Amino acid sequence: MSVDDSEIVQRIRANFERQGLMRTMGAKLGSAVLGQVELALTPHAEISQQNGFVHGSALGALAESAVALSALSLMPPDRGVFTTEYNINFLAPAQGDRIIARGKVAKTGRTLTFCQCEVLSERDGQEQLIALFTATLVAVEGRDGILG
Amino acid sequence: MSVDDSEIVQRIRANFERQGLMRTMGAKLGSAVLGQVELALTPHAEISQQNGFVHGSALGALAESAVALSALSLMPPDRGVFTTEYNINFLAPAQGDRIIARGKVAKTGRTLTFCQCEVLSERDGQEQLIALFTATLVAVEGRDGILG
Amino acid sequence: MSVDDSEIVQRIRANFERQGLMRTMGAKLGSAVLGQVELALTPHAEISQQNGFVHGSALGALAESAVALSALSLMPPDRGVFTTEYNINFLAPAQGDRIIARGKVAKTGRTLTFCQCEVLSERDGQEQLIALFTATLVAVEGRDGILG
Amino acid sequence: MSVDDSEIVQRIRANFERQGLMRTMGAKLGSAVLGQVELALTPHAEISQQNGFVHGSALGALAESAVALSALSLMPPDRGVFTTEYNINFLAPAQGDRIIARGKVAKTGRTLTFCQCEVLSERDGQEQLIALFTATLVAVEGRDGILG
Repeated sequence: MSVDDSEIVQRIRANFERQGLMRTMGAKLGSAVLGQVELALTPHAEISQQNGFVHGSALGALAESAVALSALSLMPPDRGVFTTEYNINFLAPAQGDRIIARGKVAKTGRTLTFCQCEVLSERDGQEQLIALFTATLVAVEGRDGILG
Repeated sequence: MSVDDSEIVQRIRANFERQGLMRTMGAKLGSAVLGQVELALTPHAEISQQNGFVHGSALGALAESAVALSALSLMPPDRGVFTTEYNINFLAPAQGDRIIARGKVAKTGRTLTFCQCEVLSERDGQEQLIALFTATLVAVEGRDGILG
Repeated sequence: MSVDDSEIVQRIRANFERQGLMRTMGAKLGSAVLGQVELALTPHAEISQQNGFVHGSALGALAESAVALSALSLMPPDRGVFTTEYNINFLAPAQGDRIIARGKVAKTGRTLTFCQCEVLSERDGQEQLIALFTATLVAVEGRDGILG
Repeated sequence: MSVDDSEIVQRIRANFERQGLMRTMGAKLGSAVLGQVELALTPHAEISQQNGFVHGSALGALAESAVALSALSLMPPDRGVFTTEYNINFLAPAQGDRIIARGKVAKTGRTLTFCQCEVLSERDGQEQLIALFTATLVAVEGRDGILG
């Protein structure tokens, strides 16, 4: 964790805390710097699929929030973002002590921001890449935050 | 709702009820026939993004479960499926009285099953298309159900 | 084929004929109506992969052009479009007498247009679905046509 | 260019040379090592879209071949691969002196291989990232090469 208390990080944190789904999933905000935000959660039964692994789409949710916050960190205060599409590839079952989503901005333009996210599982301190994620976000003038 | 009690539907239902994330999201199993399964939920704060709309990735979760169950409905009892990738495009904010995911199998082969899902919002009985979703699933021999 | 000579279709045709890659691939403009454009080609060695089938990515190219023209058909004369992302799923090898891409607009908004395309092979008059395709296009003010 | 003459590279080269579409596009095989293959081409009118830029889907074609060859480089001689899906995000127009696709394998398993590719344009020796690409490939027993 390396969250500092700059204005950007406060904005990211305030936004993150208003996301009901992230709270429900038990997601925590990790490091947050310009264009890169990390979220993590501990696997639990409320976000499982039928065999007790974390539901694949919960990785999608964690990754989507991580990249939306990454994109938001590069926006001026009067611009918000919304996700227009994402795709996710599942490389391995989601289990372990912790699931980590490392979002980052690949390119930001006037309207579109392109992001990628690696999703990893951590077990006994060892990380394993479990999902690849790419998303496109759209900037909206005169609106703060992450829009639905 | 047009759930009948055939063996297939019982298998779908049993599988659905073991998915913790679907329970957490308040998802309900709607119609289920061979190769087509419908899930629905009522928007609520636990699955929201910051503005109170349903979190986009919750639509991804609902759609993923709908197509995985659709694929499972075409498998013999000793074969399970897992989702290897999906992509989702968000056409409109997710709000309204109800969110519906209509999953269907586009093609099933020996190893791969290709699925699509339309996600709709319903307000005052009117449906609106809010997301397009495509997924690839992989069949696994000797394993029942939806794997993580 | 049901190409009529309206202003829209002329615009579509003029745009299509300037696309070098479509000419190289031997693509032909089929039916074109508001929001729906069909392109087709006859398999040949210049667009093959190593076994003589049509290269999968040539289906992607045909589909991308079909949806871009579909989106363009709904734009006023001073607006152009560019494709910001697409994804394609390959359901069966691309062979047969003819390959057909049926593009259509799923939803158009002020900035974004969402499109889908079915790619089919035709053999002895029988059609088979061989690829699913989804794309997002962006409208650009003050620019005509399909931008790179 | 760092092509050595090992058995793997010969296999990659032989496969690449049988791909009609790559020849048509003027693609050249660059460096090829285990799990990583680079292809490149010089922009020309036969692969353009209407404004003279390289057609976006030609980037998709170059990237698909780059990742398929990357996956093939990790297969034993009696296994082939085919691409089951890919998605591509376009970050900037495709122009410049040269277009380069750098494919690599993110993870390979018994059935599925996950790949990524960065597509770059080069102008006056400066590289710019112009597209992000992700693909899933399927291994096939008893078949050599890249299947359609």
